[in-house]
Amino acid sequence: MYRTHTCGELRIDNVGQSVTLAGWVQRVRKMGGMTFVDLRDRYGITQLVFNSETNQELNERANKLGREFVIQIVGTVNERYSKNANMPTGDIEIIVNELNLLNASDVPPFTIEDQSDGGDDIRMKYRYLDLRRSCVRKNLELRHKMCIEVRNYLSDLGFLEVETPMLIGSTPEGARDFVVPSRMNPGQFYALPQSPQTLKQLLMVAGFDRYFQIVKCFRDEDLRADRQPEFTQIDCEMSFVTQEDIIQTFEGMAKHLFKTLRGVEINEPFLRLPWAEAMRRFGSDKPDMRFGMEFVELMDTLKCGTFPVFDNATYIGGICAPGCAVYTRKQLDQLTDFVKRPQIGAKGLVYARVQEDGSVKSSVDKFYTPEQLDALKQKMDAKPGDLILILSGDDTLKTRKQLCELRLEMGERLGLRDKNKFALLWVTEFPMFEWSDEEQRLMAMHHPFTHPMDEDIALLDTNPSAVRADAYDMVCNGIEVGGGSIRIHDPKLQAKMFEILGFTPERAQEQFGFLMNAFKYGAPPHGGLAYGLDRWVSIFAGLDSIRDCIAFPKNNSGRDVMLDAPAAIDQKQLDELFLKVDLTEENA
Amino acid sequence: MYRTHTCGELRIDNVGQSVTLAGWVQRVRKMGGMTFVDLRDRYGITQLVFNSETNQELNERANKLGREFVIQIVGTVNERYSKNANMPTGDIEIIVNELNLLNASDVPPFTIEDQSDGGDDIRMKYRYLDLRRSCVRKNLELRHKMCIEVRNYLSDLGFLEVETPMLIGSTPEGARDFVVPSRMNPGQFYALPQSPQTLKQLLMVAGFDRYFQIVKCFRDEDLRADRQPEFTQIDCEMSFVTQEDIIQTFEGMAKHLFKTLRGVEINEPFLRLPWAEAMRRFGSDKPDMRFGMEFVELMDTLKCGTFPVFDNATYIGGICAPGCAVYTRKQLDQLTDFVKRPQIGAKGLVYARVQEDGSVKSSVDKFYTPEQLDALKQKMDAKPGDLILILSGDDTLKTRKQLCELRLEMGERLGLRDKNKFALLWVTEFPMFEWSDEEQRLMAMHHPFTHPMDEDIALLDTNPSAVRADAYDMVCNGIEVGGGSIRIHDPKLQAKMFEILGFTPERAQEQFGFLMNAFKYGAPPHGGLAYGLDRWVSIFAGLDSIRDCIAFPKNNSGRDVMLDAPAAIDQKQLDELFLKVDLTEENA
Repeated sequence: MYRTHTCGELRIDNVGQSVTLAGWVQRVRKMGGMTFVDLRDRYGITQLVFNSETNQELNERANKLGREFVIQIVGTVNERYSKNANMPTGDIEIIVNELNLLNASDVPPFTIEDQSDGGDDIRMKYRYLDLRRSCVRKNLELRHKMCIEVRNYLSDLGFLEVETPMLIGSTPEGARDFVVPSRMNPGQFYALPQSPQTLKQLLMVAGFDRYFQIVKCFRDEDLRADRQPEFTQIDCEMSFVTQEDIIQTFEGMAKHLFKTLRGVEINEPFLRLPWAEAMRRFGSDKPDMRFGMEFVELMDTLKCGTFPVFDNATYIGGICAPGCAVYTRKQLDQLTDFVKRPQIGAKGLVYARVQEDGSVKSSVDKFYTPEQLDALKQKMDAKPGDLILILSGDDTLKTRKQLCELRLEMGERLGLRDKNKFALLWVTEFPMFEWSDEEQRLMAMHHPFTHPMDEDIALLDTNPSAVRADAYDMVCNGIEVGGGSIRIHDPKLQAKMFEILGFTPERAQEQFGFLMNAFKYGAPPHGGLAYGLDRWVSIFAGLDSIRDCIAFPKNNSGRDVMLDAPAAIDQKQLDELFLKVDLTEENA
Repeated sequence: MYRTHTCGELRIDNVGQSVTLAGWVQRVRKMGGMTFVDLRDRYGITQLVFNSETNQELNERANKLGREFVIQIVGTVNERYSKNANMPTGDIEIIVNELNLLNASDVPPFTIEDQSDGGDDIRMKYRYLDLRRSCVRKNLELRHKMCIEVRNYLSDLGFLEVETPMLIGSTPEGARDFVVPSRMNPGQFYALPQSPQTLKQLLMVAGFDRYFQIVKCFRDEDLRADRQPEFTQIDCEMSFVTQEDIIQTFEGMAKHLFKTLRGVEINEPFLRLPWAEAMRRFGSDKPDMRFGMEFVELMDTLKCGTFPVFDNATYIGGICAPGCAVYTRKQLDQLTDFVKRPQIGAKGLVYARVQEDGSVKSSVDKFYTPEQLDALKQKMDAKPGDLILILSGDDTLKTRKQLCELRLEMGERLGLRDKNKFALLWVTEFPMFEWSDEEQRLMAMHHPFTHPMDEDIALLDTNPSAVRADAYDMVCNGIEVGGGSIRIHDPKLQAKMFEILGFTPERAQEQFGFLMNAFKYGAPPHGGLAYGLDRWVSIFAGLDSIRDCIAFPKNNSGRDVMLDAPAAIDQKQLDELFLKVDLTEENA
């Protein structure tokens, strides 16, 4: 061992001991005849002292040390004259009597500090240096701890972690697969799993009863902000359970994690919101419940035959932003621009200020009487000083989603989305299907193995689009952190589901035959859920992006800029796989 | 929840309780007016009783249950009249008063019993049924427990589990990569990692200090017996350590695993054998130390100018098989055939029996005097009744490997390779390089990042093939379960290593530039090792094959016969990847 102690552990009690430390040079400061070196490792920083009066040669060598040099020193722990209460080792310093240079370093391309001068691109290229910054390393320490806690929690409940294969078959349903050509089976391809969904269901058929896995999954999607082509799931499945059992189990896990990782005690059961209610009250299937500002439907209040925009609307809804009546014209224009951005797509924004005297002053004053505006105020339960913001449209779902974006924006502006506050809930009773304009058919909102709610099964024949799924999402701070469902275990119901989804029996057999065959041999009732680990960690870490919870993330083109992957491969490799690259001109 | 208890937990104390169970029908037996059903789940088997006198309708329904039907029952726990001491629930039975069929089952294609009538192929095709057999499930439970123990052990020592990416760059050095075409980067490919070797070294450069990961790795090799294209590694790396620190750490982990998983206490330090000694004494770099039968070199004893075969040999070695002098001519012929098999390749086998009177009778009697044969006996330390087996050849290494196979065969025949006995050791001081006839150059025996032993560094310039590596393998019962090395952290030494391995500076930069660049910024001294988890579990489980430690293994053609993967993919998928499959006639 190159050291007797780490750079984070020496304290006043160690004074007088001879110690050996190893680590990286964080900083060298020369003060008169003394040289102070901050020595850093994963565990902390310890101050080293060199004195030219005691040992000039050593002091000179210390002065030549550069940032990020790797050194080993031997010295004696000394009580500091001026202590530093901001660091755990701040009471002591090391009087060095031996210095070994283990490795030199070029000048790093950015500073290894929490507040670094490096931009995103250069930090990713030199990720191994970026990871030296304690703020980044801490996220990965948190990730490690979370995985240990999850594993021990589930293992104690009798869950078995089972590794499912990474080289499986491709299923064109759903997102795009990454495929892997098979050399031993020329012309054939494996696919990397988008999730172990069917495999964990097979484990239930196999009687494994309680399964989990923290597992890499892959989706070849055009990467929107903060998506990664490879991501990690906490994947779980249980047999002989109902939705209630699964919710209890994983609500327990979430509470355990908040307690052990963040010191947050959550004693009450999580709120449960049916999907329809979540959409009505918040315009979202993952509402941020850290703050109120619920939607108020204003069809009765504002459809008065006086304002054509509202009169033609199929939905009018408002939110009340407390204390925002003081917003300037410029601020209101910004909000209007915000909702009119193509990503949101509203046509305009109507506002109404509640003045100090209780009167209402709105952007549509000329269409409404003061009494009508007062009714609006009453309906919105708005107080003097509040700002009422109203959207309308001819598509209820779309308008609600626009209003949701506005609500989140106002929550942000009002500082109501505190990263240290956690609002958890379950959203339930999702629609089973959603209509796809592109495919001109119903699509499974979750996946084709989702069980309908028992009371809606009869509707499968008469009105499938009204069927609700026995599905549930766990939502935290406006982010879906996990979701799942009770699965179909009856082969006949599964066959009907494929039929509704427009699968021919042949195609269903071709793609999911292995699962449907397995279901012939005694499938138990089962269900489960999966958490997005990267996202879950980022919430615990208080981060906006998942990137810094991942050791070596990829950029938005799916590239690892540090490894410079993907890259061209040798012709020999292609030949062995019987593949030819056939680029179009624009790609060549 | 569909049950109040599992099928493995009810005991005599529960008598009188009303319970609900759910599980699979293992067996239905009709005895007079009674019907007995064995109900099975992951946790055990509980006997259900139906009585036609009490409830004829229920009894009739019970009689119609088939094997592997999934049922739920409600009943009362009753003390059995004739108890079954062989099963934990054998003191009780359930008097059933409600029976719900949850799912029927086709007749399974093989019996769900430890001794199944299903062959390997059908068991793999219906792996979800095979996994219902408790002997198979137990292996996966063991695997789960081992992973939990490994993680907690290492985490307690400050190791962080860090997930490294699965989509990396291809490195033609070493085994063949599986590649993954990138749609977003047309004509470019990711590779799946053969191991996270370079990434964990980058984590050391990043100051992570102690890293581990239980991680899937991939190798596109022609599958020899008991290899899988995807396999799992326990991958570890530490900074500021020497070989001794790594050996101490992981010897501790191995002892912990044997204690917690097998109840085996290992108190002594593991034996350490330098590679050269292991080869000399056992002809193997992974000797099975559960038994002796060490090699005795016989050059001085048998090179007498009388027997041309030995006179021309560069190596003559023997082993002494205790009590085997009674072997018949037929048995000896079998042994001769064994060593002459192409996989072993010896030219012949010389034997010598030590008779009860102490005289020696050998297959080469005519070439040697009784005195010379007596000297052989002395040299071999053979006792009356022992059988001396001798191989010779003109290639010392090859002949030793042949003699190793013979030693293992004799150990097997003599029952000395007991699966419940564990002999662990470290093999150290491996050669740094081995000569490749195919490539006509030195190849790294481990990998190009392995550090030479300090005392041999000077030999790199003068006699590289004599350089020993600072590498170590952990061997258990003749199987390499783990191995690793101290890595090079000095960029200059790394560059020299690439040079010796025949890399041009350009090619080294192209393939490993990211690592060599990283080493410019203060790489700490570091080293690590990796265990083959599948193999490690199979040893703990007492299995010959790794297959039954893997939930969904592939066959020797790399196929998952259950999923029927790999398979052809849609033209649309190929088009999106700008790929064309170009089969030769024989593959089309």
